[in-house]
Amino acid sequence: MSDSEDRQTVTPTLDRVRLPSDLKSLSDSELKTLAHELRNETISTVSQTGGHLGAGLGVVELTVALHAVFDAPRDKIVWDVGHQCYPHKILTGRRDRIRTLRQKGGLSGFTKRSESPYDPFGAGHSSTSISAAVGFAMGRELGAETGDAIAVIGDGAMSGGMAFEAMNHAGHLGKRLFVVLNDNEMSIAPPVGALSSYLTRLYSEASLQDLKAAAKGAVSLLPEPFQAGARRAKEMLKGMAMGGTLFEELGFTYVGPVDGHDLDQLLPLLRTLKARATGPVLIHALTKKGKGYAPAENRADGGHATAKFDVATGEQKKAPSNAPAYTKVFAQSLIKEAAKDDKIVAITAAMPDGTGLNLFADHYPRRCFDVGIAEQHAVTFSAGLAASGMKPFCAIYSTFLQRGYDQIVHDVAIQRLPVRFAIDRAGLVGADGATHAGSFDVGFMSSLPGMVVMAAADEAELVHMVATAAAHDDGPIAFRYPRGEGVGVEMPEAGVPLEIGRGRMIAEGSRVAILSYGTRLAEVMKAREALQARGLAPTVADARFAKPLDTDLIDRLVAGHEALICIEEGAVGGFGSHVAQYLSEQGVFDHGLKFRSMVLPDTFIDHASPEDMYRSAGMDAPQIEAKVLELLGVAIAKRA
Amino acid sequence: MSDSEDRQTVTPTLDRVRLPSDLKSLSDSELKTLAHELRNETISTVSQTGGHLGAGLGVVELTVALHAVFDAPRDKIVWDVGHQCYPHKILTGRRDRIRTLRQKGGLSGFTKRSESPYDPFGAGHSSTSISAAVGFAMGRELGAETGDAIAVIGDGAMSGGMAFEAMNHAGHLGKRLFVVLNDNEMSIAPPVGALSSYLTRLYSEASLQDLKAAAKGAVSLLPEPFQAGARRAKEMLKGMAMGGTLFEELGFTYVGPVDGHDLDQLLPLLRTLKARATGPVLIHALTKKGKGYAPAENRADGGHATAKFDVATGEQKKAPSNAPAYTKVFAQSLIKEAAKDDKIVAITAAMPDGTGLNLFADHYPRRCFDVGIAEQHAVTFSAGLAASGMKPFCAIYSTFLQRGYDQIVHDVAIQRLPVRFAIDRAGLVGADGATHAGSFDVGFMSSLPGMVVMAAADEAELVHMVATAAAHDDGPIAFRYPRGEGVGVEMPEAGVPLEIGRGRMIAEGSRVAILSYGTRLAEVMKAREALQARGLAPTVADARFAKPLDTDLIDRLVAGHEALICIEEGAVGGFGSHVAQYLSEQGVFDHGLKFRSMVLPDTFIDHASPEDMYRSAGMDAPQIEAKVLELLGVAIAKRA
Repeated sequence: MSDSEDRQTVTPTLDRVRLPSDLKSLSDSELKTLAHELRNETISTVSQTGGHLGAGLGVVELTVALHAVFDAPRDKIVWDVGHQCYPHKILTGRRDRIRTLRQKGGLSGFTKRSESPYDPFGAGHSSTSISAAVGFAMGRELGAETGDAIAVIGDGAMSGGMAFEAMNHAGHLGKRLFVVLNDNEMSIAPPVGALSSYLTRLYSEASLQDLKAAAKGAVSLLPEPFQAGARRAKEMLKGMAMGGTLFEELGFTYVGPVDGHDLDQLLPLLRTLKARATGPVLIHALTKKGKGYAPAENRADGGHATAKFDVATGEQKKAPSNAPAYTKVFAQSLIKEAAKDDKIVAITAAMPDGTGLNLFADHYPRRCFDVGIAEQHAVTFSAGLAASGMKPFCAIYSTFLQRGYDQIVHDVAIQRLPVRFAIDRAGLVGADGATHAGSFDVGFMSSLPGMVVMAAADEAELVHMVATAAAHDDGPIAFRYPRGEGVGVEMPEAGVPLEIGRGRMIAEGSRVAILSYGTRLAEVMKAREALQARGLAPTVADARFAKPLDTDLIDRLVAGHEALICIEEGAVGGFGSHVAQYLSEQGVFDHGLKFRSMVLPDTFIDHASPEDMYRSAGMDAPQIEAKVLELLGVAIAKRA
Repeated sequence: MSDSEDRQTVTPTLDRVRLPSDLKSLSDSELKTLAHELRNETISTVSQTGGHLGAGLGVVELTVALHAVFDAPRDKIVWDVGHQCYPHKILTGRRDRIRTLRQKGGLSGFTKRSESPYDPFGAGHSSTSISAAVGFAMGRELGAETGDAIAVIGDGAMSGGMAFEAMNHAGHLGKRLFVVLNDNEMSIAPPVGALSSYLTRLYSEASLQDLKAAAKGAVSLLPEPFQAGARRAKEMLKGMAMGGTLFEELGFTYVGPVDGHDLDQLLPLLRTLKARATGPVLIHALTKKGKGYAPAENRADGGHATAKFDVATGEQKKAPSNAPAYTKVFAQSLIKEAAKDDKIVAITAAMPDGTGLNLFADHYPRRCFDVGIAEQHAVTFSAGLAASGMKPFCAIYSTFLQRGYDQIVHDVAIQRLPVRFAIDRAGLVGADGATHAGSFDVGFMSSLPGMVVMAAADEAELVHMVATAAAHDDGPIAFRYPRGEGVGVEMPEAGVPLEIGRGRMIAEGSRVAILSYGTRLAEVMKAREALQARGLAPTVADARFAKPLDTDLIDRLVAGHEALICIEEGAVGGFGSHVAQYLSEQGVFDHGLKFRSMVLPDTFIDHASPEDMYRSAGMDAPQIEAKVLELLGVAIAKRA
């Protein structure tokens, strides 16, 4: 039997498990077999669906142990980020749908409350699990029908400030609570930060067990002053032997490190803690991302995310691409600008690959900063760099930039510091779904006085916007661009700074003008083509700037057309709202203008392909065409 | 000579100081005299201006020592929050304007880049200083013209997650950087959290100096296994003796604790560190909030913020109030609701007094949570409580809620968890200025699918909105209300839940309709009175909800009037933008409607009285009146 067949078909123990309660009847030996089968099922699944692989493989034994010992859904197991939850989903009544992962109408790639009572708290972003678990624990203390609260959080996620805030609060409250630190020395990228070095020190000392044994008797050997402070000394010696002082100082009982892949360690430990713990406990589990599947283990990122792949070889099945990805265009453009200006520096928050800054770091390692999962710090650190005279490009996904919003307002915008925000993954992002959609940045950035806000209509525009941001030094500036590949336009030799607040005419037409902001332009042009066939070609312009608005361009469009349609890949309150505000102030509406602002609908859109998501959002070419026809009062045959 | 006279007039040493460079010629003894005079000057100033008193008094010696040893403005001293900067302002060329503090056209109550080169990084919000200082330090490493970077941060601010993120990054970078932990066991309220307990333990051990001496020779006395790991053991023993293990673990050299009011300790320490430090250093200084002024020291909050006062007695000069403050109305209403429903809990982030939750805690101590300066955790902790079945009211100022924005999106809105957001200090706030303005919440909350967004038009409405939020259990809901006192309306016996998405008609009129959202209603009614005298009384309605909109009410206003004016105390992108989106989708603009949306202007408005600020924002009664007249085409005499 081939490895591939074994991984797909032979799961007699797993077949006996439909819900976590079924684990209670399995012996420890059977639980080990279950873990083996669960790992194979996970690999087999992701080979068909694509998705997050490494994280799930790293917690197979943890998943089995937690469900064997605790009693979900009464006990609340909160998976941080949630991308490691595939094994959990398989054990919690969703095995029959596991191969629909991340597909339209299928299971989410993260935990999701609406999907299962076994997902008590959904996720997608990092570092939220401890806060949620503290909420469950305090709900229980106040009489809510809930059992134990268990947060499972990675070492990378632990560097996020809100995890520290939650630990600080939990230690203060002192109530029973479990935090499993899933330490694989790896978030999406190798983790950075002093905390990470600290964790490594905790288990890199050679003779931990010896030290532990020694510590018990050591106090009496201490010199007099230490004996006087014996309680403290004991704590310290315990810290020295067992590690974990940092967590102990925050009021947690530290347990570990334990081998997170060894059920012989995990099961007795969790059983003991379940029986005896009275306050907050941190369980430090060492795991390996991609564990048990060589092609994942051998990848630098532990097989973090993957396309569909061949189980036997690990080879990914990716469709060939014709156009460069926006991310890469951004990185290459920034590298070019940095060659001309040594004040340019780049900042990312644990997303060097995702933002393309790994390429920048290859060229300019000293000028590239990965601050870890720490968006708040990333923004204000960038502001500090700007205040010292540097030219920082702060590259963060739209959805994660939400976490640095106050810092954008308070440290950047109010001070008019020239931080450049490169906002990747703007708009709908596909399989990652609602938690990762970049729907709100146009609104929350454009409302800020003094902020320049741009969106690239295609990959060539992105090149120019990087140049524009590099040249703009008297205040903050932001530019957004989507996930995925460009549209295949010709690329410029070099970026040329755009005039701030100046859009561009794309195609002259009549009666209706469409003012597009961002990458819907391609769909707008498809719609125009269809309309042209009817003799109804609209004028199309690219706004480029949501702030400041190109009011000359808007005035011209208003003057020469009976209708104006704005379109953007964002929620109401952004570009279209700023245009509407301008038009109303100008009195344009006083005498009538068919004005429409096409924005994302007022709903969180579930995962699907980006094309499907934009279709369900009412923003693809046929729907743009229909909007134009509706405004022109033309009956639409296909609607009949 | 009376105490009061001494404090105001006798400052011979301070009189010799115009800039920090003047301190270089003073002896240590003269520096002590300077500190004494600086304290008196600070007390005298705040007695005339009102403002933050206790924090400044707590850092008088630190301020003198830092400016005596370091070389600002080349060296960058970054004051966290900035409310402790009055002594710093006095020493940095602003003594002649110090009595204009927090007044229109005068000095800001916080550090502000545009005010002085000695304010390298402005503030107002907490926990940003280390991030900024790391930015300055790395700018220096990359060739920027900047010297040392020194962050001065309180123990309360240190509990903010972004401070931890910055420490984690700074420890990782390992570059020279100074963090002065100004530990007064007191932020605005007594600090909470395990970190605070930890800091207390660091200096509560009786014989620190003995331990320190002992530690030096202790290693050789250790049993064999410890000697094997001698480096680590030394570190631990140092930690045991000196404290600060937590900071050492994060890569900082910990120094302290030192008496932050003793220049004989501070000056040599800072001189030594300036001469020798090579990496990040944390200096743990113990200070007393309100130090040296008995009336402040004796207050529970250390004299945090004060009105003008009598120096001799400390008695504050407050104008008598006729109407209850919104904050108190909120608290009392919540207490009433909590009496009826034991699932109601309240959460604040280090603002128990400011949010009125101190009153709630008096009644329901177990159901009230102050999580410390930790807005991100506050929001997700609330979400966890909601997920466990509780009914959390999360009370945070508008400006600070920005720091929990991602958590509102990701943990609350996407999951439709019934967290109730009580948004205090909405709109312009007066003397605290731009950093504390609540300008953006209507926009950033209303763009979120499923969020119910309300604003109270007066204090009676606030009572009903608390009841509405208590009753609304199938998703998140938010209500905003301003700083300060209500308008004096009759108060209801009990709150009655409002129908979700239903506004109310205030006064019928003709031709123009004004749809007010929030507390501008009072100004709108004043404008209506003036217009009535001209026979031009407009219709006035109170929207109550920015989301969902009362589209029936809007339809009626549109149908019966030639013009519609929306008004709100927020930036573009909020209520008016949602109304505009609705009107455009309905085709109302197709045939003409005089529509205007009065919002805050696109600028950060400097501190002044709220009345002044709203006047400069174009949003007071005369300006509303003028807007109506303009729409009606009536010439306005006073403009001629």
